[in-house]
Amino acid sequence: MHRLLPRRSCLPASSILVSRRPLYIHFYSTMAESTVGEPKAPVERKEKVKKEKAVQYTLKTPKGTKDWSDKDMILRTRIFDTLTSVFKRHGGVTIDTPVFELREILAGKYGEDSKLIYDLKDQGGELCSLRYDLTVPFARFLAMNPTIQSIKRYHIAKVYRRDQPAMTKGRMREFYQCDFDIAGTYETMIPDAEAIAIAVEGLTELGIEDFTVKLNHRKLLDGIFAVCGVPEADVRKISSAVDKLDKVTWEDVKKEMTEEKNLPVEVADKIGEYVKLKGGKDLIAVLQADEALMANESAAQGVKDMVLLFEYLDAFEATSRVSFDLSLARGLDYYTGIIYECVTAASAPPPADDAAVDTKRSSKKKPKDEDEDVSEYVGVGSIAAGGRYDELVGMFAQSKKKTVMPCVGISFGVERLFSLIKAKEDMSRIRATATDVYVMAFGGGKEWTGFLPERMQVARQLWAAGISAEFLYKAKPKPRQQFDAAEKLGAPLAIILGQEEYTQGKAKVKRLGLGEEADEGDDVALTELAGYICRQLAEK
Amino acid sequence: MHRLLPRRSCLPASSILVSRRPLYIHFYSTMAESTVGEPKAPVERKEKVKKEKAVQYTLKTPKGTKDWSDKDMILRTRIFDTLTSVFKRHGGVTIDTPVFELREILAGKYGEDSKLIYDLKDQGGELCSLRYDLTVPFARFLAMNPTIQSIKRYHIAKVYRRDQPAMTKGRMREFYQCDFDIAGTYETMIPDAEAIAIAVEGLTELGIEDFTVKLNHRKLLDGIFAVCGVPEADVRKISSAVDKLDKVTWEDVKKEMTEEKNLPVEVADKIGEYVKLKGGKDLIAVLQADEALMANESAAQGVKDMVLLFEYLDAFEATSRVSFDLSLARGLDYYTGIIYECVTAASAPPPADDAAVDTKRSSKKKPKDEDEDVSEYVGVGSIAAGGRYDELVGMFAQSKKKTVMPCVGISFGVERLFSLIKAKEDMSRIRATATDVYVMAFGGGKEWTGFLPERMQVARQLWAAGISAEFLYKAKPKPRQQFDAAEKLGAPLAIILGQEEYTQGKAKVKRLGLGEEADEGDDVALTELAGYICRQLAEK
Repeated sequence: MHRLLPRRSCLPASSILVSRRPLYIHFYSTMAESTVGEPKAPVERKEKVKKEKAVQYTLKTPKGTKDWSDKDMILRTRIFDTLTSVFKRHGGVTIDTPVFELREILAGKYGEDSKLIYDLKDQGGELCSLRYDLTVPFARFLAMNPTIQSIKRYHIAKVYRRDQPAMTKGRMREFYQCDFDIAGTYETMIPDAEAIAIAVEGLTELGIEDFTVKLNHRKLLDGIFAVCGVPEADVRKISSAVDKLDKVTWEDVKKEMTEEKNLPVEVADKIGEYVKLKGGKDLIAVLQADEALMANESAAQGVKDMVLLFEYLDAFEATSRVSFDLSLARGLDYYTGIIYECVTAASAPPPADDAAVDTKRSSKKKPKDEDEDVSEYVGVGSIAAGGRYDELVGMFAQSKKKTVMPCVGISFGVERLFSLIKAKEDMSRIRATATDVYVMAFGGGKEWTGFLPERMQVARQLWAAGISAEFLYKAKPKPRQQFDAAEKLGAPLAIILGQEEYTQGKAKVKRLGLGEEADEGDDVALTELAGYICRQLAEK
Repeated sequence: MHRLLPRRSCLPASSILVSRRPLYIHFYSTMAESTVGEPKAPVERKEKVKKEKAVQYTLKTPKGTKDWSDKDMILRTRIFDTLTSVFKRHGGVTIDTPVFELREILAGKYGEDSKLIYDLKDQGGELCSLRYDLTVPFARFLAMNPTIQSIKRYHIAKVYRRDQPAMTKGRMREFYQCDFDIAGTYETMIPDAEAIAIAVEGLTELGIEDFTVKLNHRKLLDGIFAVCGVPEADVRKISSAVDKLDKVTWEDVKKEMTEEKNLPVEVADKIGEYVKLKGGKDLIAVLQADEALMANESAAQGVKDMVLLFEYLDAFEATSRVSFDLSLARGLDYYTGIIYECVTAASAPPPADDAAVDTKRSSKKKPKDEDEDVSEYVGVGSIAAGGRYDELVGMFAQSKKKTVMPCVGISFGVERLFSLIKAKEDMSRIRATATDVYVMAFGGGKEWTGFLPERMQVARQLWAAGISAEFLYKAKPKPRQQFDAAEKLGAPLAIILGQEEYTQGKAKVKRLGLGEEADEGDDVALTELAGYICRQLAEK
């Protein structure tokens, strides 16, 4: 049955009928009668039916999602291929998990962000939600497969967040993550260093030049909070306030801590002294000299880890990319060790004194209108991020035979990388199709059949040899039409079945796209075409 | 916040606590208090809290979905790669659409199957549903992009159906489709023939040997129904009864037509005479000799199309694969021209007189218990299917400037193909990882450091050259541990950093997996390792 009106939409009727977006088309119902509600009186009913017939809805993808096509797909596939080859180079194997999980699996894993999870409707049976990331499904997979004692797995797939989208900056509701994670019980900081090396290698091979890996340690951060006097129960919420330092000023963060989260001002000020620290290996000595901090077991462990980590990052030649940054906190609950975020100049929001920003904008740079694109007021955010999470798998496996499965991983944000890479790319050099040969027929006169079955036979011969070939879907095509089609595809070669040559068992092979120096072409026996074309393509 | 009990589950409590599946683990809440409902009395409340602490839920993927990993992933990726290369060879470009669509987009496109659509929960904003196939999203994409006047697009992605799963036969609720569609206004039957040629080429390259392409034409079928006396309003529901002929007997179909759908018995019998007809090109002459049928405009058009189609299938050397079968109807509403389904011996359900089938089973072979696996009672179904749908894009674009966008396409069912291919594959010959080199260190004594940073440096050198390499995440590993790890991965080469050789700037490169004829190894300068390994791998 046709259902043209959303049955339980919470949008005002106007938003169904009128779109603010430029692209929309009208949809007229073929229904004779409305199925939506019962009218109060016959007259009203008639009017309703009439209205319904002309119901319009915006033809679009859901908010925060988009279609990908043409050269964008070629470019995005190139990003996937580059990252896949980096992942495989480090011994990665891939897994695939369902796009939705049982709702209990995702519950309690994402802290304040849980409200952004998409739920499936209860249609009977299990309650499910769309995955929010690839990490929790990976942990669930490990808990379900206890025979896997160690694994380096990569997973390239879509995840879902009901967040405020900023499409031109690659902040979407449906977006790809490319994750590499190392699970298993190993000596401290070795897999951690490799995860960071993979982040550096991946971004470098993608041609991202100006990135920095911001690095911190949850144990160090927890130690700092303890030493400053944050009650243990408040650590996560204070941590999530600190995490906003890449987007808002210290004053705003302090305000959130003291006013919204009731932290004493002097505690906030102490935290402020620590979180402004950043540097390289040198920062380790500064922290080691801080006796109060080193007396805290958690902080001391964190610093000890960092010493080792920097030694290994040196061996991987990754140190120059790293900024040890005590303001990095990361929002997610499940991290237990080192955490990192790769950022570029485009990651941060534009400065507040940008000419275009009017005074009504708050320092948080969020537009007031739900439907307004926030792209102008935010940066692309981090382009890759990750950390160590040693207890997530155990959360699924709290039986007596406790499963301990320490993990560390890195996740690349493809849409954000895409928007950076596309901005630098010469898109005119990308070909959308892979067609190598266009099979044409030339001829005329009353006897001329157009050689359609003959062109089909030649194409079939090429396909069987693995050669990409097309022909015009027309019984009697004109030469011009066929050349135009071949040119539009950017096909480098044409096979021309001439009326006379064909009867002599021959065809002409011509190189295309040569402009002024048009190719005369070679005569090739029909039975030799595939082999001849293969050699021509191999030479190019 | 932790939520451990499904909040609105319609399952009985027992199904949460006890799983019928072999794999499940227990989950104990760390919550101090229940958040689920309010108890009636303090005593009851206390008991409830205690119970909640020991709540267990089955650790599993949602019904009808599964994880993919290890060698299965390698095999499935190979299927994707094979089909992608066939699609590109025919000039295909790829697109990607969101996994969910606005609910109105899917409404009224799937006939009786609409009840199987997964809806997203209404969490405010737009109402959305998971895509049911890739065809309707493609049509929506074309309607939204009117500048695209023709396209050959392929799309490999997951689709969702709330159907009764039969996992071992590859019938899932979440499954992949690999679609190739040709959109554009072309001369009759040319793209149709290429779509069928792609089906034959794809299945052949996947190593499927015994398949048949069942072929029919909706216009011919509609003509047959009209000539037999089916009222026009009943055509689609009678068509969907005929479509079941591959699963149930004619008697069952006739019963459905006459008893459930009130068709007169004599009309049903007339239909029965037609739908038993099948053959090759020869069937065309039989139909052309049927004057009553040829007097029907729709049927005559259908037969005329089939004449042309067989001519083109001959040119593509695909005719021997095709069975012109008047019982093929296809369930979906949107087909308007030729329709086809690729089947193998495994497609049909096992014969009803199978020893294992008890008398309680109905002829429809559906198990009575919701949770019972239906795999025993069904076949894998069609492994690829498709047809022409000339009006689907227009359904989205009924403005005055009417968009006409005829389409024809073929969809491969990957999970079903996978189960056929895996059954024949020697899985022991598949390597799960791509690791080519294992970097080891040998040494001993008090001075022995284990060469961890040195191994890291060598691995880094190999990665930079694009070589896949791993090393043991251990500061001082034993030789045996390292060889075991390399063997488990199936790595063909080892680089061994010996305590003495290393100080002389050398390492040993050894070929692995040679069994008795263990390789002595070559001494290679540390600076030359990457180049040396590249040459070794190229030789293999």
